[in-house]
Amino acid sequence: MGKYVFGVDVGGTTVKMGLFDVEGNLLDKWEIPTRTEKNGENILPDVAGSIKAKMAEKNVEEKDVSGVGLGAPGPIDAAGTVYGAVNLGWGTFSISGTLSGLLGMTVKAGNDANVAALGEMWKGGGKGCKDLVAVTLGTGVGGGIIVNGGILTGSRGAGGEIGHIHVEDGETEACGCGNTGCLEEYASATGVVRLAKRALQASDEPSVLRHRPLDKISAKAVFDAVKEGDALAVKIAEQFGEYLGKGLAVIAGVVNPEVFVIGGGVSRAGEVLFDYIRPSFDRTVFKGCKNAKFALATLGNDAGIYGAAKLVLE
Amino acid sequence: MGKYVFGVDVGGTTVKMGLFDVEGNLLDKWEIPTRTEKNGENILPDVAGSIKAKMAEKNVEEKDVSGVGLGAPGPIDAAGTVYGAVNLGWGTFSISGTLSGLLGMTVKAGNDANVAALGEMWKGGGKGCKDLVAVTLGTGVGGGIIVNGGILTGSRGAGGEIGHIHVEDGETEACGCGNTGCLEEYASATGVVRLAKRALQASDEPSVLRHRPLDKISAKAVFDAVKEGDALAVKIAEQFGEYLGKGLAVIAGVVNPEVFVIGGGVSRAGEVLFDYIRPSFDRTVFKGCKNAKFALATLGNDAGIYGAAKLVLE
Repeated sequence: MGKYVFGVDVGGTTVKMGLFDVEGNLLDKWEIPTRTEKNGENILPDVAGSIKAKMAEKNVEEKDVSGVGLGAPGPIDAAGTVYGAVNLGWGTFSISGTLSGLLGMTVKAGNDANVAALGEMWKGGGKGCKDLVAVTLGTGVGGGIIVNGGILTGSRGAGGEIGHIHVEDGETEACGCGNTGCLEEYASATGVVRLAKRALQASDEPSVLRHRPLDKISAKAVFDAVKEGDALAVKIAEQFGEYLGKGLAVIAGVVNPEVFVIGGGVSRAGEVLFDYIRPSFDRTVFKGCKNAKFALATLGNDAGIYGAAKLVLE
Repeated sequence: MGKYVFGVDVGGTTVKMGLFDVEGNLLDKWEIPTRTEKNGENILPDVAGSIKAKMAEKNVEEKDVSGVGLGAPGPIDAAGTVYGAVNLGWGTFSISGTLSGLLGMTVKAGNDANVAALGEMWKGGGKGCKDLVAVTLGTGVGGGIIVNGGILTGSRGAGGEIGHIHVEDGETEACGCGNTGCLEEYASATGVVRLAKRALQASDEPSVLRHRPLDKISAKAVFDAVKEGDALAVKIAEQFGEYLGKGLAVIAGVVNPEVFVIGGGVSRAGEVLFDYIRPSFDRTVFKGCKNAKFALATLGNDAGIYGAAKLVLE
């Protein structure tokens, strides 16, 4: 085993890259642009070139590198084959085979949300745990599940896609996925805004949220208002928490995690979120799975490179 | 590795035992009573004695045995420690350590529902699959989840306890677990009977189910009536399927299985069940997880001994 490992997180705009020692200390961190043109055919050669340049810069030899881990947005199976990644232009091919061919090193690959969950287990909000569910409350709701220290990949790489579990029969607006009543419609940043607009339009109840135009309402504005004690904002947070708590309770019943690690933009509101998630979680969760704790993600945008590096060291 | 392996399934009344070759052929099968008195302290010595007697009878030497696998009703972690099994009188102790001490052989242990799921993967309705959810529709609803060929144990051995995922906010009657609105309240044999009684009492609609007293209604009677085309029974089956399909869709979104293997008493109704589960499953499942197939369990009461044997061979 070498002394170093590279972690690569391929996003739609930039590729984040990190050089780690095998204990997981981040020694260097940089980014390159993601060239998605021509079906993204330059992305892996660019990654390989950037890794080789960094090795030259740092006088790192090939024998000192344990391997390269890579996370990307799409279903990726345990063998490192991606089954289409629309944001990158990719079809179906072996990421690990291709990048390994370019570098002559061991390459492991996984879905970016799953890989980020692994990062939070290794060095983040779930440190020390082996059974963990990472929940990313961003524009959408993403997730990654770690079972006994390893990623739950699923039969088609769609394990942990918890944003699209069905939580509301009465919903009429469609989710981005085409279904209606998905968790993402209530618990994402976009979902919180939707709940807020509905609440503001449904009554004349005074609220600091009325001080801005309806199209300027954000999830941050809602949780800022919650912290000021705004009654209408509290009701919105309660709705958000009712759905998210029930959704996470079901997930707890299925995989019995030790901890839920909550990240993404909405999580910047802080631990106040847990006050709204806990009531419905505690009310509906199976007693044998009630041990699950809630923690905030701590690695932010670096979770992906940490988790990618950890992939190699598993 | 030896030529043989023993599979043991400890139930509240009898202990089922099997002698297998390492290819998974069942060579012999027998039962002993479960002595639950004195906190079940005789159970493992009885198992050990019975295994030794069988080895003597079959002229099997210790070096020819790869090990003993055991399933029992309770939360059991990956190391083989049980955290209380009320039906057996057991508290917390290492099953694998105790039985291994009695036999001088490798012992692996797991929760009985999880172990049965492993059996169905190995030699039953999920043969050839590595990502599987076994669903047992009996008096209650049990479950076991196999991820990448291994049992999803969970942080406290409660992985796959899918009978108690919350599926109905409006329920007023409590489940055996103390919560309300659990999947088990609608999808177990008991749950189907409950739905039937509610439907029969809610209207005067004619039905063959009215030919028997209300306290003689069974899940079998309901599905027999469905097969005769009884309109009220069909409505009951639709309710059953609506809940079960939605519950399984959520589970699919979390673990992305290749197949759901449906067993237990209710599954004797046969593939007609799938006609009632599929509509709500297809309507609510995340598209990326829609590949999940439905199959009937095929090993019946032997799933536990098959899975226990497989535990040793993993």
